[in-house]
Amino acid sequence: MQQIFHEIKISTNGQGLYDFTKQTISWLDKQKINNGILNINILHTSASLVIQENADPDVLNDLNFFFNKLVPMDNKLYKHTAEGKDDMPAHIKSALTNSQLTLSIKNKEIMLGGWQGLYLFEHRIEKHTRILSHHLMGE
Amino acid sequence: MQQIFHEIKISTNGQGLYDFTKQTISWLDKQKINNGILNINILHTSASLVIQENADPDVLNDLNFFFNKLVPMDNKLYKHTAEGKDDMPAHIKSALTNSQLTLSIKNKEIMLGGWQGLYLFEHRIEKHTRILSHHLMGE
Amino acid sequence: MQQIFHEIKISTNGQGLYDFTKQTISWLDKQKINNGILNINILHTSASLVIQENADPDVLNDLNFFFNKLVPMDNKLYKHTAEGKDDMPAHIKSALTNSQLTLSIKNKEIMLGGWQGLYLFEHRIEKHTRILSHHLMGE
Repeated sequence: MQQIFHEIKISTNGQGLYDFTKQTISWLDKQKINNGILNINILHTSASLVIQENADPDVLNDLNFFFNKLVPMDNKLYKHTAEGKDDMPAHIKSALTNSQLTLSIKNKEIMLGGWQGLYLFEHRIEKHTRILSHHLMGE
Repeated sequence: MQQIFHEIKISTNGQGLYDFTKQTISWLDKQKINNGILNINILHTSASLVIQENADPDVLNDLNFFFNKLVPMDNKLYKHTAEGKDDMPAHIKSALTNSQLTLSIKNKEIMLGGWQGLYLFEHRIEKHTRILSHHLMGE
Repeated sequence: MQQIFHEIKISTNGQGLYDFTKQTISWLDKQKINNGILNINILHTSASLVIQENADPDVLNDLNFFFNKLVPMDNKLYKHTAEGKDDMPAHIKSALTNSQLTLSIKNKEIMLGGWQGLYLFEHRIEKHTRILSHHLMGE
């Protein structure tokens, strides 16, 4: 059994979903593990991870719009306001989605459906650099 | 270390929660792995996975009812409407729940509480066949 | 490859987030596995798990407050009311967050960001003892 650790950095430019499927696959292609578990963790609590439809960009816009309506950026609603009106909503949206994804690798391919992509969900307004730790365990 | 891949197909007949615990256990019983990780991924973005109470069927109905109220099937709310009024809500509900579950297997049994079951959460109105990839890694 | 199973018990005293990061790390420190996967499952459906900010306690209060507003404790909204007004909302909140977390261990340390902690999210009002199964697989 082998284990490989890697980090992928994503530059975000405001709220929305950022597809990192290609970056993960491109790294995976170079590894000498055929079958195993790929565990991806986002090392932040104001951005999160989701598996979503990779076909119609409107899906991604609708998702972001829905979450902004569900968790309003309104300082009157929260005590934790010192880091900006988008920070506490970002923590809540992270709790409502995922901080980690565990994927299965079979014959060097991620077991995903044809319409599924891997997305970083950025919940902050300003630019950020987000680190996604990748941990591949298999043989 | 051994790795085994398998697919379980679930026929759904409209929105709601479908218990697949028995199907997973029945397959698991036949494998020669005593301890390990079982990673389950749903290969779709309009249905999802949850661990939920397996005792009172009202819990499942209340869950489905709550999610339908939280994410209304109203085309005026979304841009992505070409696939039906239930499609964009289905993507949102998937983001709010899980696309994958990672379970621990100890002495051939899934580490679940006495009241916990494995559920497919169907978010579409029409009939569908849903594929759940199962990946067992252990020894 | 080695596999170790362990249970951590958390006594909760009403709704809110309970940090168990130290308990998990303290157990992890005693194990002879350097790199691997740590799979944590909560064996209940009325409490859940989240990775959240570990700095400002207001974040935890705001989270709990938001979830209580999103999923009201109002028996008129649910059919499943026999176990108390907080029980069905607890199941819904569990579905909206996570029943399990899969973490990566590198050089005996959990791959978490500097601001991330591991939290049990208690959704019931009364005192409870919650069991978190820990399964470490690696070498």
